[in-house]
Amino acid sequence: MDTILNLGLNDISVEALAKKSGNPRFAYDSYRRLIQMFGDVVLDIPKNEFEHIFDEAKKKHGAKQDTELTPAALKEVIVAYKKLVLHHTGAEFPQDPDRQLTMARDAVFRSWNNERAKTYRRLNHIDDWLGTAVNVQAMVYGNLNETSGTGVGFTRNPANGEKEFYGEFLMNAQGEDVVAGIRTPVPISELQKQMPHVYGQLRDLTSRLEKHYRDMQDFEFTIQDGRLYMLQTRNAKRTGLAAVRIAIDMVRENLITIDEAVLRVEPNQIFDFLVPRLDEKGTVEVLAKGLPASPGAAVGQIVFTAAEAVKVHEKGTYKSIILVRAETSPEDIAGMNVASGILTSRGGMTSHAALVTRGMGKCCVAGAGDVTIDDKKKEMRVKGKVFHEGDWLSLDGTTGRIINGRLNTLPVNPDNPDLIQFMSWVDERRKLRVLANADIPRDAKQAQAFGAEGIGLCRTEHMFFAEDRLPHMQAMILAKTEEERRAALHHLLPMQRADFQGLLKVMGSYPVVIRLLDPPLHEFLPKREDLLVQIAKLESTKPHSPKLKELHRILERVEELHELNPMLALRGCRLGITYPEITEMQAHAIFEAAVTVKKSGSDPHLEIMIPLTTGPEEFKAQAAIIHGVAHDVFIKKGLSVEYKVGTMIELPRACIVADKIAADAEFFSFGTNDLTQTTFGISRDDCNKFLPAYLQQGIFKQDPFAVLDQEGVGTLIKMATNKGRSARRDLEVGICGEHGGEPESVKFCHRAGLDYVSCSPYRLLTARLAAAQAAIEEQKIFNPDLRTGNSK
Amino acid sequence: MDTILNLGLNDISVEALAKKSGNPRFAYDSYRRLIQMFGDVVLDIPKNEFEHIFDEAKKKHGAKQDTELTPAALKEVIVAYKKLVLHHTGAEFPQDPDRQLTMARDAVFRSWNNERAKTYRRLNHIDDWLGTAVNVQAMVYGNLNETSGTGVGFTRNPANGEKEFYGEFLMNAQGEDVVAGIRTPVPISELQKQMPHVYGQLRDLTSRLEKHYRDMQDFEFTIQDGRLYMLQTRNAKRTGLAAVRIAIDMVRENLITIDEAVLRVEPNQIFDFLVPRLDEKGTVEVLAKGLPASPGAAVGQIVFTAAEAVKVHEKGTYKSIILVRAETSPEDIAGMNVASGILTSRGGMTSHAALVTRGMGKCCVAGAGDVTIDDKKKEMRVKGKVFHEGDWLSLDGTTGRIINGRLNTLPVNPDNPDLIQFMSWVDERRKLRVLANADIPRDAKQAQAFGAEGIGLCRTEHMFFAEDRLPHMQAMILAKTEEERRAALHHLLPMQRADFQGLLKVMGSYPVVIRLLDPPLHEFLPKREDLLVQIAKLESTKPHSPKLKELHRILERVEELHELNPMLALRGCRLGITYPEITEMQAHAIFEAAVTVKKSGSDPHLEIMIPLTTGPEEFKAQAAIIHGVAHDVFIKKGLSVEYKVGTMIELPRACIVADKIAADAEFFSFGTNDLTQTTFGISRDDCNKFLPAYLQQGIFKQDPFAVLDQEGVGTLIKMATNKGRSARRDLEVGICGEHGGEPESVKFCHRAGLDYVSCSPYRLLTARLAAAQAAIEEQKIFNPDLRTGNSK
Repeated sequence: MDTILNLGLNDISVEALAKKSGNPRFAYDSYRRLIQMFGDVVLDIPKNEFEHIFDEAKKKHGAKQDTELTPAALKEVIVAYKKLVLHHTGAEFPQDPDRQLTMARDAVFRSWNNERAKTYRRLNHIDDWLGTAVNVQAMVYGNLNETSGTGVGFTRNPANGEKEFYGEFLMNAQGEDVVAGIRTPVPISELQKQMPHVYGQLRDLTSRLEKHYRDMQDFEFTIQDGRLYMLQTRNAKRTGLAAVRIAIDMVRENLITIDEAVLRVEPNQIFDFLVPRLDEKGTVEVLAKGLPASPGAAVGQIVFTAAEAVKVHEKGTYKSIILVRAETSPEDIAGMNVASGILTSRGGMTSHAALVTRGMGKCCVAGAGDVTIDDKKKEMRVKGKVFHEGDWLSLDGTTGRIINGRLNTLPVNPDNPDLIQFMSWVDERRKLRVLANADIPRDAKQAQAFGAEGIGLCRTEHMFFAEDRLPHMQAMILAKTEEERRAALHHLLPMQRADFQGLLKVMGSYPVVIRLLDPPLHEFLPKREDLLVQIAKLESTKPHSPKLKELHRILERVEELHELNPMLALRGCRLGITYPEITEMQAHAIFEAAVTVKKSGSDPHLEIMIPLTTGPEEFKAQAAIIHGVAHDVFIKKGLSVEYKVGTMIELPRACIVADKIAADAEFFSFGTNDLTQTTFGISRDDCNKFLPAYLQQGIFKQDPFAVLDQEGVGTLIKMATNKGRSARRDLEVGICGEHGGEPESVKFCHRAGLDYVSCSPYRLLTARLAAAQAAIEEQKIFNPDLRTGNSK
Repeated sequence: MDTILNLGLNDISVEALAKKSGNPRFAYDSYRRLIQMFGDVVLDIPKNEFEHIFDEAKKKHGAKQDTELTPAALKEVIVAYKKLVLHHTGAEFPQDPDRQLTMARDAVFRSWNNERAKTYRRLNHIDDWLGTAVNVQAMVYGNLNETSGTGVGFTRNPANGEKEFYGEFLMNAQGEDVVAGIRTPVPISELQKQMPHVYGQLRDLTSRLEKHYRDMQDFEFTIQDGRLYMLQTRNAKRTGLAAVRIAIDMVRENLITIDEAVLRVEPNQIFDFLVPRLDEKGTVEVLAKGLPASPGAAVGQIVFTAAEAVKVHEKGTYKSIILVRAETSPEDIAGMNVASGILTSRGGMTSHAALVTRGMGKCCVAGAGDVTIDDKKKEMRVKGKVFHEGDWLSLDGTTGRIINGRLNTLPVNPDNPDLIQFMSWVDERRKLRVLANADIPRDAKQAQAFGAEGIGLCRTEHMFFAEDRLPHMQAMILAKTEEERRAALHHLLPMQRADFQGLLKVMGSYPVVIRLLDPPLHEFLPKREDLLVQIAKLESTKPHSPKLKELHRILERVEELHELNPMLALRGCRLGITYPEITEMQAHAIFEAAVTVKKSGSDPHLEIMIPLTTGPEEFKAQAAIIHGVAHDVFIKKGLSVEYKVGTMIELPRACIVADKIAADAEFFSFGTNDLTQTTFGISRDDCNKFLPAYLQQGIFKQDPFAVLDQEGVGTLIKMATNKGRSARRDLEVGICGEHGGEPESVKFCHRAGLDYVSCSPYRLLTARLAAAQAAIEEQKIFNPDLRTGNSK
């Protein structure tokens, strides 16, 4: 939101103001502020050119504080400012107050379409067509004299939610002085000492505002000559920790209902409980704010190149590294890997740095425009301060703040009593079950701690990448005959069995959905281009090396398996249909594990999932193998285990023929990653080449891999669910793509009538909360009393 | 269909038959035939083991003809045959006639599920669940004596359709002797001389049968002791040439209606008019039959390896080469390229040889099981004959026949009067318009000759691969800035303009649909792995070569553009949205060409097509550029041209939001290649790894890239058509994927209410015929009189 203060002043009225106030310094200061703000917001003149003139004036007149400039000095500044305006616009600074107002109004309307506003709306999913409003207020002057001032505050602590009056102010100042950081604002508690009456009024007013709006307020005020004016109040932004604490407190204070409390916390914010955060006791010097690209906190010493990061990490020079870059690229990966946190001055929420760090679960502040980085000079400049390699910095990836110096970090505390209280309300309200994607017992335990009601996706291939298994996996793939392949599978069987045993044991009687082998086989082999280069080098240097023959043998098979579009090639159930012995082996491992676990007194709840089906025929063929193996194992072991066989629904065709698939399949689980890829015809691995342009131009409102596309992919999901249930009334339907942990997508799943969502363990809290909110929102639609908030 | 003759004979009844017929040779011959056929069909004993025993006996007894074996010699054969049965089955040859009958009946039923039958059904799209019947007939003996015999025939010539009595027979023989080719059958005209009465009866009977069934008949008969017995009659198989000729003749003979005539020709058969065929005047020695993998004819000298083919082609040793391989692989491509025709002994209709030759438009007979090929010895054996390199062979890819020696080939004759007459009937009946996919004026002219009513798909990228353009295209891609890119595009503009001018001129006032740039950019750059290998070699041998720097520069950009799944990456309108200057250039070229053509007196009918849209936003963004350029060009040139802007519908999401797209788009053209890829999640380039297993196991009934998947992809097409027309009543809807030339798919398009199909020029006749048949079939449904064929 742009603000233009002091509007209406001109060469004539400024003299009147000087006379009337008896304070010429104040009048000229207000006029020069008008020209500066108007120049910046309305006339698009770079702010720093005004700042430069002002700084020069202060230097020339030996003024340390802005307020020390004399009226004469300020008049000089005004002349210089007006010259600057003429130079930039070819016209004089407008003297007619009406014209000033019209131009300012138009500039505010125009600002709706500037890049910054567009990006903000995109990140916050605000519709471009909403439009903005212009508010015209009478001026009160915080810079009138020493009994005037201005400040901002919160009715509660926005960082931790504690019920304390919180804020800061400056005497003899206007609004932007508090925000801009040129003068250091004073904690609001000081106001109580300086102007107890005003302080009392402020406390009274703001707590009435909080009661009226039934939410924590973020307010701005100005004091003119000892009299308090409220400029603005709004519901305050807050961290997840604060949101939960405040929601609970407000229920206890009878301000809001429990339903409202559950709706008050953004599901994504709950993630704040799962990442380290900064301990902000004492003074915190925020240097700048960038984009909150990847949540969490990092405190470390700065380094300017990835290579240097790797070097100091290996030497152990710095224990914790903050990698500072203009922007990152794939070559920086090694450096990013050893860093505790990443700070970039360019790039947005989908920049390389943002994507990679979120994948790594590492804190990142991206696109901090106020930070200038020179990796040649190894210098970082921000707000006039210069930082060098080894200087300490604290990053808050949850809010995007860059903080000077070395703060402590607070560890994760999932046993936080606020969280436990809040999540119990959440779970009482949600109807969707929430499961976790987990492949190994450790992750499964973690998932249970975060409230998982089962494993919704166990990817069996992840087990094959382990060092002791890869050779057998490779032997299986390189096999030329079914016999050779069976021999290699025979080695893998006991390992898979042990994996499944571990997982089923941990999960007790919770459901465990095991997906059969899914990825393209070449993922397990050396890369084709690496082999080609290796061979080319050897042939040029050691043409008689015996290694060449072996390399050629592997290359031959790699070439055979080489695929132009692996996402659309030999994977999923296509593997099990082409090589049925793979499905047989996996079924053996699963059922033998289940029987063993059941014998040890547990009650495994087993669901076997066939991936990437396009229709009922594939399902039938694979299910027949599974049922056959189950029968054999149960007879041999003298004990049978209940199980279901179902399928991933991750291709448009499967959605279209879902009724036919459901005739045999006992459950559906939507693989929305693949379903999004095929519905859009966009590969998630390749979309970074054009997705930025799409988001920039507003062609996509959101990255469809992050937020489920309800119109396209969602239509297919609803179609498949309805068709599936038309053929099998009790068909169990869930989702196990990454959308299963994204709030809007979870809410969609609730509305589409799914039974559960499955997501990565760290997204479980978010998914549970989103599910509860969806249930409450649905109730509201059917109960108008709830809709208007009159239920309390 | 399996036949078992002489059933019921055993050790006792054979003696009675000998006595009753007074011809022991005949009786023992019949008995040994029974054991052989029963052994083969019922007991699964390899046929060649019987043949070996029989051949040895003939050698031992100095018999040249089968009929020269004495009763005693035949008795020896019977003993040896019975031993063979005991050896293979562990049981005596069954003596009980009832048991023989039961076993034979079961074997015929079983045969429904053997591999050969399954493959046949798959190739001919016959449902697996139909089942078969067993027919039990009283025996008559063509091998009784010299006034007995057996034969097969057709009421018309099945090769060219001429109305002539056509067939062959053998005296003193049983049915399989005629077919097996051990004895050479005699043309049926001989029967007129030998047994004029029987011949007259046969002619009379078969012409009555033809009238009764109202179609050309394929019949089998046996003569026992001078008396004629009809064994079987059925509608005859015929070539496309014959089908058309017969259909026309039968209309003239008042046997069938014109509607029926149009339905009588298989749309794929019409292709026979467009490929060379063998001139079959004189005797034709069919060596064996394989699969008709790629239609047409080839006459040439045989060569056994691809390398040899390339060598003799370069030397000019043989003018026409037939490449003979057990099966082909990608290494054989060069050899296949120089050959006139390909013959393989293994592999089916979707084998490498079949796929590649169909793509090349080259004749191929594949999977000829009776042919044994030894490429080490450079020998081909078939039916006891041995062929060496340089021997002449004639292949008929339309029927799968392999013919000994050097036949002449008949050139293509599109002005064939039969064809013209037939197609005029076709065009009077069809409702779908038929357009062609063509990129250059030459192809457009060809398409017009085959009846194209416009160009349904002009792929502009094909123009960029030309040698004089590639460097500019590469410069455009390698450009680092928009300016550099615009400079390169500036070079391409006049070339594109000239292309479009040529095309629009040729097509007159017919519609021409031009698709904007579609393929991934890296297709125009050197291959990544080639660069890597080149660099690796240079670095090992000439590390200071100046070429290295340039190679690295190209590699860098190639790496940037490298995509894991190019089908799902930066292509289609994503190019134009990421680099709008490409769309601008293409629009300029198109409109400038159209204006020039219009000024020269023509009336171009222009449709610009935006590829790969996922929703209305992309369409709007690209259409805005196109309309802007059109406006500029029309003003500058002082003349405007009518045009439409529409889109390819080739992604599932586009089908789902088709109503929103149609709010702006003036036409839809289904790109069913891509739509099939994304609906199934299967890449056409990679499916050869698992499609054979899918077809083999019956999981897919057909290759969905060859025959449109009506259930899945078809549902999306219908959805998009209905949604699109709900938003824009006069929306023009067509299809331009390769399915546009496949009969079943064309019929689907008719039923789905499309306006047109567009296919490659050589598929136009097929598409026209299929469209007419669809119209007639639809009428039948609504007019029961037509349905029962009573309309005549």
